[in-house]
Amino acid sequence: MASINKRIYVKAILRQDKAVRISALDLKVPGLIVTYTPEEVLIETDYGESLSAVAYLNKAIQIVSKYLDTFKGVDIEVKSEMPVGAGLGTSAAVSVATVAAYSYAMGYELTKKEIAKLGWQVEKEVQGIASPMDTAISTYGGFIRIQLFGKDKYDIKPIATTADLPIVIGYVERQAKTKDMVEQVKKLKDRYPDVVDGIMDLIGAITDEAEKVLRDNDLVRLGELMNMNHGLLDALGVSTKKLSEMVYAARSAGALGAKLTGAGGGGCVIALSPEKQEAVEVAMNLYGSMTLKTDLGAEGIVIKKV
Amino acid sequence: MASINKRIYVKAILRQDKAVRISALDLKVPGLIVTYTPEEVLIETDYGESLSAVAYLNKAIQIVSKYLDTFKGVDIEVKSEMPVGAGLGTSAAVSVATVAAYSYAMGYELTKKEIAKLGWQVEKEVQGIASPMDTAISTYGGFIRIQLFGKDKYDIKPIATTADLPIVIGYVERQAKTKDMVEQVKKLKDRYPDVVDGIMDLIGAITDEAEKVLRDNDLVRLGELMNMNHGLLDALGVSTKKLSEMVYAARSAGALGAKLTGAGGGGCVIALSPEKQEAVEVAMNLYGSMTLKTDLGAEGIVIKKV
Repeated sequence: MASINKRIYVKAILRQDKAVRISALDLKVPGLIVTYTPEEVLIETDYGESLSAVAYLNKAIQIVSKYLDTFKGVDIEVKSEMPVGAGLGTSAAVSVATVAAYSYAMGYELTKKEIAKLGWQVEKEVQGIASPMDTAISTYGGFIRIQLFGKDKYDIKPIATTADLPIVIGYVERQAKTKDMVEQVKKLKDRYPDVVDGIMDLIGAITDEAEKVLRDNDLVRLGELMNMNHGLLDALGVSTKKLSEMVYAARSAGALGAKLTGAGGGGCVIALSPEKQEAVEVAMNLYGSMTLKTDLGAEGIVIKKV
Repeated sequence: MASINKRIYVKAILRQDKAVRISALDLKVPGLIVTYTPEEVLIETDYGESLSAVAYLNKAIQIVSKYLDTFKGVDIEVKSEMPVGAGLGTSAAVSVATVAAYSYAMGYELTKKEIAKLGWQVEKEVQGIASPMDTAISTYGGFIRIQLFGKDKYDIKPIATTADLPIVIGYVERQAKTKDMVEQVKKLKDRYPDVVDGIMDLIGAITDEAEKVLRDNDLVRLGELMNMNHGLLDALGVSTKKLSEMVYAARSAGALGAKLTGAGGGGCVIALSPEKQEAVEVAMNLYGSMTLKTDLGAEGIVIKKV
């Protein structure tokens, strides 16, 4: 699990009244502004469906209020350097950033552990089901491994590497929601339990290998492992025509490895391209609706007084 | 393992002299005619590289001669309803058909077991390494499973099904030879033995499942299993941009399942399309250089006096 060097900014400024005003113009085209008080919700947009993006902010405020047993009205402003809902874990980044910003505005400095935990709770309550990985990586940054214990606990293990990991991310509109993809894999597992469990185990084994080669700065092998990982995800049925096209376009252009990332069903492809980043980006652009160049292993959450 | 309803015709007519004349105009564009005697080889073509296609015929004649301890000069004529060298097991079909035709012309009626065995030997000697599956399926036809014992023995188990299995085959020029692909997977296995063995095991498990659903005529599940199989082959690195495009084109057009077939590195995609065969063929044609519609489970070798 690696962070990428693209940020979500959440600014929280306390209000004098009990209202919550969320301005999240970056979250979805055409963006939206939502103001709600205990009595009323005002959505300043034409598109009701954009509301789903606000669910994470809304839930983060509720959960922080409950955790700290305090509620204060607040203006929340969200800016994003990434497409939201593309499978890059942006909902997790929004969740942890809102938890951190809102609690800080109210005068509390939560630990990273608290932020990651509350952020995970936000994702679980909004989505019904959530992995703790995205919220943990958004909080801690860098490269980490997560080991789950039961339903609500996990351990974080940082992976030390000095590798320079330039990547290109390609994005295509999603055709399915994370929840639907999770459900689809679950059904596949009901029909072919041994095969699907076997694939999951191999994905785990590849992650173990990736950790090793990352410590050794062996990017060629890291690329190979990404390719194998992609094939296994394809076998689980979470790839799409467009994602597959972008993966092969990236490899054809010289990427050391390329794979879909996130829950699939559309979303993002990540290509490791230490040398041919320009060519890889051009090739991915032919098939994707947006690309961005960045690095892996950036810092986690940063809290600043403004 | 299933036969397809496309045939290779090998005609053998004994000559009065000791020469072997091979006319294999279908085997490769631009085709070729080779005549060889113990003293001389005459190749009537501009393209020396086409020779590789003749190697199977040549070797089949040698092996039959040795097995029967008889050599007679012969005119061999080969016609093919399939692209040769595309990963459809055509080299196996050529091998067994030549074994059967040449031995029959000399007055011997070999059993299917003998034909399959000698055909396998042809493939092994030409390629250095060969699975017995292609030669067995070309000989026996239908749906069979093969269990290997050691290096040179196997058992054949027919699979009973009454399913009607219309498929579309899409073909793209190969970028790598079978031998190179086998070598590439071997190298991947050297680097990641557990993962590659795990993938191989899952491919085996999927074949077991496929046998079950075939008995039940459950084409929806057969399609799902084909898709999973494709993902696992992709994880082994034997897919290509073009094969992957054809696979997803076929699925988008309504195929129940689509997968690469053969050793990969280019070659063929097979799509199960009981209902939308026309649409699937059109979609695959957009990405492949040739498509053909056929059925699975056709008869094996047929020997006729002409």
